[in-house]
Amino acid sequence: MICFNCDYTEGAHPKILERLLATNLEQTVGYGEDLYCEQARGLIRKACKAPKADVHFLVGGTQANFTVIRSALRPHQGVFSAAIGHINVHESGAIEATGHKVLSLPCGPEGKLTADQIEAAWLAHWEDATHEHQVQPKMVYISHPTENGALYTRKELTDLSEVCKTRGLFLFLDGARLGYGLSAPETDLSLPDLARLCDAFYLGGTKCGALFGEAVVLTHPQLQSDFRYLIKQSGGMLAKGRLLGLQFLTLMENNLYLEICGKANRQAKEIATACVEAGFPIYAPSPTNQQFFIFPNRVLSKLEEKYLFALWEKIDASHTAVRICTSWATTDQHVKALTQDIRGLRA
Amino acid sequence: MICFNCDYTEGAHPKILERLLATNLEQTVGYGEDLYCEQARGLIRKACKAPKADVHFLVGGTQANFTVIRSALRPHQGVFSAAIGHINVHESGAIEATGHKVLSLPCGPEGKLTADQIEAAWLAHWEDATHEHQVQPKMVYISHPTENGALYTRKELTDLSEVCKTRGLFLFLDGARLGYGLSAPETDLSLPDLARLCDAFYLGGTKCGALFGEAVVLTHPQLQSDFRYLIKQSGGMLAKGRLLGLQFLTLMENNLYLEICGKANRQAKEIATACVEAGFPIYAPSPTNQQFFIFPNRVLSKLEEKYLFALWEKIDASHTAVRICTSWATTDQHVKALTQDIRGLRA
Amino acid sequence: MICFNCDYTEGAHPKILERLLATNLEQTVGYGEDLYCEQARGLIRKACKAPKADVHFLVGGTQANFTVIRSALRPHQGVFSAAIGHINVHESGAIEATGHKVLSLPCGPEGKLTADQIEAAWLAHWEDATHEHQVQPKMVYISHPTENGALYTRKELTDLSEVCKTRGLFLFLDGARLGYGLSAPETDLSLPDLARLCDAFYLGGTKCGALFGEAVVLTHPQLQSDFRYLIKQSGGMLAKGRLLGLQFLTLMENNLYLEICGKANRQAKEIATACVEAGFPIYAPSPTNQQFFIFPNRVLSKLEEKYLFALWEKIDASHTAVRICTSWATTDQHVKALTQDIRGLRA
Amino acid sequence: MICFNCDYTEGAHPKILERLLATNLEQTVGYGEDLYCEQARGLIRKACKAPKADVHFLVGGTQANFTVIRSALRPHQGVFSAAIGHINVHESGAIEATGHKVLSLPCGPEGKLTADQIEAAWLAHWEDATHEHQVQPKMVYISHPTENGALYTRKELTDLSEVCKTRGLFLFLDGARLGYGLSAPETDLSLPDLARLCDAFYLGGTKCGALFGEAVVLTHPQLQSDFRYLIKQSGGMLAKGRLLGLQFLTLMENNLYLEICGKANRQAKEIATACVEAGFPIYAPSPTNQQFFIFPNRVLSKLEEKYLFALWEKIDASHTAVRICTSWATTDQHVKALTQDIRGLRA
Repeated sequence: MICFNCDYTEGAHPKILERLLATNLEQTVGYGEDLYCEQARGLIRKACKAPKADVHFLVGGTQANFTVIRSALRPHQGVFSAAIGHINVHESGAIEATGHKVLSLPCGPEGKLTADQIEAAWLAHWEDATHEHQVQPKMVYISHPTENGALYTRKELTDLSEVCKTRGLFLFLDGARLGYGLSAPETDLSLPDLARLCDAFYLGGTKCGALFGEAVVLTHPQLQSDFRYLIKQSGGMLAKGRLLGLQFLTLMENNLYLEICGKANRQAKEIATACVEAGFPIYAPSPTNQQFFIFPNRVLSKLEEKYLFALWEKIDASHTAVRICTSWATTDQHVKALTQDIRGLRA
Repeated sequence: MICFNCDYTEGAHPKILERLLATNLEQTVGYGEDLYCEQARGLIRKACKAPKADVHFLVGGTQANFTVIRSALRPHQGVFSAAIGHINVHESGAIEATGHKVLSLPCGPEGKLTADQIEAAWLAHWEDATHEHQVQPKMVYISHPTENGALYTRKELTDLSEVCKTRGLFLFLDGARLGYGLSAPETDLSLPDLARLCDAFYLGGTKCGALFGEAVVLTHPQLQSDFRYLIKQSGGMLAKGRLLGLQFLTLMENNLYLEICGKANRQAKEIATACVEAGFPIYAPSPTNQQFFIFPNRVLSKLEEKYLFALWEKIDASHTAVRICTSWATTDQHVKALTQDIRGLRA
Repeated sequence: MICFNCDYTEGAHPKILERLLATNLEQTVGYGEDLYCEQARGLIRKACKAPKADVHFLVGGTQANFTVIRSALRPHQGVFSAAIGHINVHESGAIEATGHKVLSLPCGPEGKLTADQIEAAWLAHWEDATHEHQVQPKMVYISHPTENGALYTRKELTDLSEVCKTRGLFLFLDGARLGYGLSAPETDLSLPDLARLCDAFYLGGTKCGALFGEAVVLTHPQLQSDFRYLIKQSGGMLAKGRLLGLQFLTLMENNLYLEICGKANRQAKEIATACVEAGFPIYAPSPTNQQFFIFPNRVLSKLEEKYLFALWEKIDASHTAVRICTSWATTDQHVKALTQDIRGLRA
Repeated sequence: MICFNCDYTEGAHPKILERLLATNLEQTVGYGEDLYCEQARGLIRKACKAPKADVHFLVGGTQANFTVIRSALRPHQGVFSAAIGHINVHESGAIEATGHKVLSLPCGPEGKLTADQIEAAWLAHWEDATHEHQVQPKMVYISHPTENGALYTRKELTDLSEVCKTRGLFLFLDGARLGYGLSAPETDLSLPDLARLCDAFYLGGTKCGALFGEAVVLTHPQLQSDFRYLIKQSGGMLAKGRLLGLQFLTLMENNLYLEICGKANRQAKEIATACVEAGFPIYAPSPTNQQFFIFPNRVLSKLEEKYLFALWEKIDASHTAVRICTSWATTDQHVKALTQDIRGLRA
């Protein structure tokens, strides 16, 4: 079986493993205070043009999400999320486990939130005479790319950022697949934009070529305070912290992060083109490494003899939406095989 | 101003105050282990025909809700609720504060959940390959009457109870206004039905004639274990516990609970009749003490010169849904004045 | 049996019940926003000479403790408490249930903390290279009177307050029995002192003549923010909030609070004098309504034929420390009987 | 500087890196459900002679501790720990953050708990009339080796296990350094003993030669239920789960785990012998890879010119206790240098 189901089926980009090997017997201090972490933090700050930002390395995405959120919110405060947001549906209630309600807002297939939505929801809270009996919104959580691969434009993110600043909300961007977002030709958003517009965000490693790891960037001074206590308490402080530093150092050097993600985007586009040309309808439009198409079940069964996809939604009795995913590790040979097979099957 | 905005604008039924006065200088043990509490528990068990049920007195509804829920669930489990359920929107995130997600399900204006909904939502969880990444449903929370005054039929509650038993879910009924539900002529549900069909429920005191207090009935043996620890930890164990026992003793004697709530239901019906006859549309149909009507704003402004209502929803630029509420304390004179004024205003 | 085991065996001071009766049929808004609450808040602010303080009425002490603490602390922060502090041993882990460690410090039989202890513990945290792996101290919790009836002097409380200010710690005083503390002739602390020296404290009602209720006074601006959300979420917002306002209004008028507690103190002193004269050793010295003496078990058995005490500690095989407690409701006749019996038994 | 401060200054045993390299481009399913994890689980079950045990791989020790504890306890329950236990002092309040009190019990320098202590503490809870106002003990947490390197004997662990079974307590053993414990010549405890006597325990990887990772073994059926939800919710479910499986597979094959830890124990013993012979007093006796000695500060300063130790406790103005730590990566050359220098310095 050839896996197109997700972007974490292989290990890590070979350069990362090389580096782990080369440094294996060095002795360093633990818990993220070693020189490799410091260097990686420096490169990230520089790439973000955010010299005052704090950068922390955490092991995984769920951990990054709940650690940032519980660090930022007081007990009566909640976080807005698109209905399909990862924190709302795919983290086993990790946010609620830290005491905070995820304030779900409706979204289209792209999975984006709009500034107008936030403004309206904020007003709905504060204009209600009984707002003290409700969860107070204090943060906006978005993913970029979204769960369904879509990207915010600079205009959209700027609008979100402005309503957040005006209304006293923190803006937190889940960048589990940020590399794919930043390297998409369609995007007009750069790392410095994110650092300027968001109060917190992260560069995902796990799904973008690392063995594991997410680099959390905290730009809002209030969110920087005591964050290492929170990491430790949340079980996210790796003893051999340099493993995270080394990985991000490798990814941030020589543009590797964007290069390998950009390659995956291009492969995804080839697959999407094949699907479109073969007449399969788009489930959710995406310029990044995740593509979402609706297949007749008989077509899908045929494809599933050779390929693994992620089943995304049962559309009706005879159609299913699937996610097709590429990554740094996807080979052109596999893409070629798949696109040929798709073209051969037609809608 | 004459208050029709809620059912907790006055103190307590005079018989309750009499009893508090009469027993004031008696010395009793604290924390709900006195004889009055024991007697009240006995009367409630008897009225429920549930000799093995545990009965606990808590101070308020939010407290009762989160204490029962956190006692019943493991950390990864959540509770189904209608979207308008009190725990989902009017308790400042109290359930989430104890670590559990409220699994919101859509509902109509009546605010009821159906057995089919629960079955479908349960299956959706367990049939999903990634269910371990989602909150596991383990309890169903309903209110009776609902937030909008509606009542479950015995058939509906039996169906809910059966799906819960089949699927291993606890069924928990919020009875903050249970007296109004049990005394409505339209209902075919009795206390023994509730005790038989639910794993936990409570008889509300605060909104049904007491100064404060809710009598939680736990019928499922698993929910009975160590519940007093949970009450204490949750801040719900009244030092002078007899205050709760004395109030429920008074309410349960001589049918007082149903008598005073039944009177309020009849008054509510008079008001509803006037609204209907005057041509104002029903917002949500209710056989109990809360009535929900849509008024043109100009009519509402006129009424608000004399009466206080609860604003329920802005329907459009010129119409508003309001809740009109009666209670044990509502006077016939006030009802007469309101119905006359409503009839005089017409839609 | 005559109860000397605690100060919450009776109902409420008769003037409180009179007031509840007199206002019973008035209609007021709920949730503590009525005029009686406002008046009571005004009297408390005035008595505290703290016009900018926020005053909130909560139902009980455990609730007051955890609501204040969880409102003040971030997730990685903890609260210092004497080892015998109520939050450390008698609230079923309510503080931990909100996510915070109680940082227990050793104390003598009086149950007091000292400024030097706090300074040393604070330094021990911050001077440890691994402090990020430990709970960060952020609050000091004391009770006044302490669990064992002792009182801080103005000098002691001033020193505590200073170290807290210097070290950025909140000072929170549990005043469940504050009336007894303020009315003790031995004290040099007044309500304005507490309001000036503490960031948060409360005037206990439950154990000082009310049916129930604690008046939380928040003087630190940071602690005032959004506190009503926290009360609601913590299950402490009484629907008929005026019940709390009316009780504190009554207690604060005409010096009733201090008068009735002062009477109980005098009765306790009579009992203590009898114990001392009869040769029974003091377990913990107290100038307030709780007295702690060590009785031979045979003496205790004899007394327990007529009187109920709280067993405090098993001292050895043949001696037990007990708490003897008076209250607003204790009659001189009962005190006379007890002192005579004690004198007749001798050590 | 030569690091003897801890056992996580290097990367991983070379065989682990080899394996990661060799499998890097294989495609596997995520979240610990791949074949390597399954094989590793099989080897661990076999080594434990516990075919029915559940084995889960988590990233780190704090995570393993709080995930097991919050999975096992109801909200009002707490966990006994030695005062110096890792969960009590070095996890930033992670256990309390999940709502549970760590019930600290006194311990000697070895850091062990005894069966008698547990029995006495259990009785103290249940014999207290107000036990419902206290945290209910439900679990015993021990470390093996302890924080200070000591080992339980089979007799001691059997006694603990028996009191736990009798009193309905879970016994949970933190094995962050278990490899060193199992490979110490002094021990009479084997993996099958642990699996038989404990309800949950883990084989530490992070400090025993892996890059990271702990293998949690759950033998009690009640603790096995739904544990994967808890891992996910707690942020401990690695997307590329095979990284954990591959590491434990490598460690469990050909006795590597015990072999590399045994080597470190022997090196630690050489260092200890040098310290004893040079006349430095033992701070806490240890047969494992951590050694604790008291040095005069002038000696320590001299040694610190070349070596890094962990400062453990300031003994007095001129003496300090330090931890000297070896690991799989410690070279004989470094040990030789250190022992020579120690012998040259004398007490």
